[in-house]
Amino acid sequence: MTKNRLEAFSDGVLAIIITIMVLELRTPAGHDWQGLLRLWPTLLAYVLSFVYIGIYWNNHHLMHTVRRVNGTVLWANLHLLFWLSLFPFVSGWAGESRFAAVPMTCYAGVALMAAAAYNLLVQTILRADVSNHLLREALGDFLKGRLSIAVYAVALVTPFLGYPGVWVSGLTLMAVALMWLIPDRRIERVLEQAGQSPPG
Amino acid sequence: MTKNRLEAFSDGVLAIIITIMVLELRTPAGHDWQGLLRLWPTLLAYVLSFVYIGIYWNNHHLMHTVRRVNGTVLWANLHLLFWLSLFPFVSGWAGESRFAAVPMTCYAGVALMAAAAYNLLVQTILRADVSNHLLREALGDFLKGRLSIAVYAVALVTPFLGYPGVWVSGLTLMAVALMWLIPDRRIERVLEQAGQSPPG
Amino acid sequence: MTKNRLEAFSDGVLAIIITIMVLELRTPAGHDWQGLLRLWPTLLAYVLSFVYIGIYWNNHHLMHTVRRVNGTVLWANLHLLFWLSLFPFVSGWAGESRFAAVPMTCYAGVALMAAAAYNLLVQTILRADVSNHLLREALGDFLKGRLSIAVYAVALVTPFLGYPGVWVSGLTLMAVALMWLIPDRRIERVLEQAGQSPPG
Amino acid sequence: MTKNRLEAFSDGVLAIIITIMVLELRTPAGHDWQGLLRLWPTLLAYVLSFVYIGIYWNNHHLMHTVRRVNGTVLWANLHLLFWLSLFPFVSGWAGESRFAAVPMTCYAGVALMAAAAYNLLVQTILRADVSNHLLREALGDFLKGRLSIAVYAVALVTPFLGYPGVWVSGLTLMAVALMWLIPDRRIERVLEQAGQSPPG
Repeated sequence: MTKNRLEAFSDGVLAIIITIMVLELRTPAGHDWQGLLRLWPTLLAYVLSFVYIGIYWNNHHLMHTVRRVNGTVLWANLHLLFWLSLFPFVSGWAGESRFAAVPMTCYAGVALMAAAAYNLLVQTILRADVSNHLLREALGDFLKGRLSIAVYAVALVTPFLGYPGVWVSGLTLMAVALMWLIPDRRIERVLEQAGQSPPG
Repeated sequence: MTKNRLEAFSDGVLAIIITIMVLELRTPAGHDWQGLLRLWPTLLAYVLSFVYIGIYWNNHHLMHTVRRVNGTVLWANLHLLFWLSLFPFVSGWAGESRFAAVPMTCYAGVALMAAAAYNLLVQTILRADVSNHLLREALGDFLKGRLSIAVYAVALVTPFLGYPGVWVSGLTLMAVALMWLIPDRRIERVLEQAGQSPPG
Repeated sequence: MTKNRLEAFSDGVLAIIITIMVLELRTPAGHDWQGLLRLWPTLLAYVLSFVYIGIYWNNHHLMHTVRRVNGTVLWANLHLLFWLSLFPFVSGWAGESRFAAVPMTCYAGVALMAAAAYNLLVQTILRADVSNHLLREALGDFLKGRLSIAVYAVALVTPFLGYPGVWVSGLTLMAVALMWLIPDRRIERVLEQAGQSPPG
Repeated sequence: MTKNRLEAFSDGVLAIIITIMVLELRTPAGHDWQGLLRLWPTLLAYVLSFVYIGIYWNNHHLMHTVRRVNGTVLWANLHLLFWLSLFPFVSGWAGESRFAAVPMTCYAGVALMAAAAYNLLVQTILRADVSNHLLREALGDFLKGRLSIAVYAVALVTPFLGYPGVWVSGLTLMAVALMWLIPDRRIERVLEQAGQSPPG
């Protein structure tokens, strides 16, 4: 039951994060195409951030194979939500600055911290529910998670290596999103099995 | 279970979209009737957008006849939510510009993309759950969906055909909303049957 | 099941309305008590609107005795949510104008329309579920609802009758809130009975 | 059932409060580190407020051992949510003022009122459900709650005792947060027992 409320609260926070980001899209100054075109960096940052939050929401379904939730898991989850809640802020800043070096680094930094918080959450869950073989199988070897963190670290540094470092950073962040967009058959298959034969 | 979370998350996002649009209604400049009257384009755009999001929420109930959800369905649903999340932006812009040509075209464009995303979602669902005759019956021949897309395309073009193209566009958008407001007996009847005899 | 989603969506919208109203409380100009005190009209409007939305959320529990929901009920509910969604707007305006006549009239007007929409919703529900004696009993004779509408009509007019009409309007609006704050034993008792012996 | 809707609505409001606070983090003026660093008071206030709302969400789980909810409990809960809804306002003001005395006192005041409202809610619940021994045990002797209120009273006063009173206030507020962050084994253990043998 506590797990259900954890899912409901997380869904609520993620739904709000993904939606209030649109408030960073300020009304264009003019009423012509140029007014809209001048917004392209904000629009692009919005699309990328929307996809990121969507990925985290998708992956948050791993909660469904969880059988035991304790106080540490609740706080590890809030810790993840904290970093995700900063996406509207860094996304708005990166767009408004037309992808200047410092805002891009901050964006990559928030993405990095969110990925680390997600890994921490997964490990906290596994520790709280040691015998959960279904979950352990669903998560596999964390390869994708560790790879993402390494790539975020690159995106964090490149903006300071001079032109075209900012663009390398942006493309790198998009590449990670694409890697996660490819549906993770592993979690899906395990969730399906869990539906047929409930854990425990 | 994953389906329930999909519904809960979509309800959350739609509830937020429909509500934060009111933030585009800035406090009037004066404290008299004129201050309020000067806001009529924003108010009108708010009403129309409220009805649009309401229609999508209503139609989203088709999810209830769905029995299988996979990763592709999750992303097709997020794709729909993305276009719907742009309604506050184009609605605010169209209102603030007092229905200038470019903002109106953008509004029609977002409406068009949302309708296309909805059709895509329906087809993704049908592919994931091929044997779902209830759902297939509920959706019928997509006539209304295809008609809407055609009409949105008209509303997209007319603002550039000179006066009174913008008004044709606005009236066209309202006509589509009215067409959908007429309760869709088909989905309702099928949902009722599903309640009496659960699918499967 | 459709009823559950109706409740979840309405809860979501009401939760957002009640919370985003705080965004109308702009950061005070100075960092002293005077900066805060100058905000008193906005704070007072916030408290009143918070109580109003709270009352509607409380009364929305009547949905729980509903057994049949159709498309007309869904739209009657959205119609109610539309008028409630305007509370942040009129509340912010009334506060910012330090309770000028026109904003106060608009506030009373939105309160009036919301009350009428609530009555319409109740009647739509009763028509969709004619044999629901539990609900009919819970609602009683609508006396409180009709009285509220009459009082809102007074609050709508008094601001234009010269000083101190605006204050009469405000006190009247507060009186209605107080009348509803007195817990409605009727709905509570019926809900309790429904819990012990499910309707039907 | 009413209890479920109470939890869902509270989760919704708490999710929105915790998320819209990020809107107080305005885009930095410049695109360099200095622009970001100038925001440190707002960022710090954001982190503290996030933790506070997280603590209230965590503690709100006591609702789960509740068996009876009446109108008084609903309003005691709304009263708590009212004070929590002011966190974005005082948090933004305290940060924007770089922790001036009056905003800090207001922050402590809102924290104090929220703690008092929480205690009131707990007592209202215990009165509505006198025989609930599980809940009574979970709550223990209120020591932590009473201690918090005392400490908030200190944080309320110190900003006016001259330098470095504001910092004492801030550190005090953080200390309370830390005290609550230490997971409350009592509620957790009782909830677990409740899961194994449902109350009643």
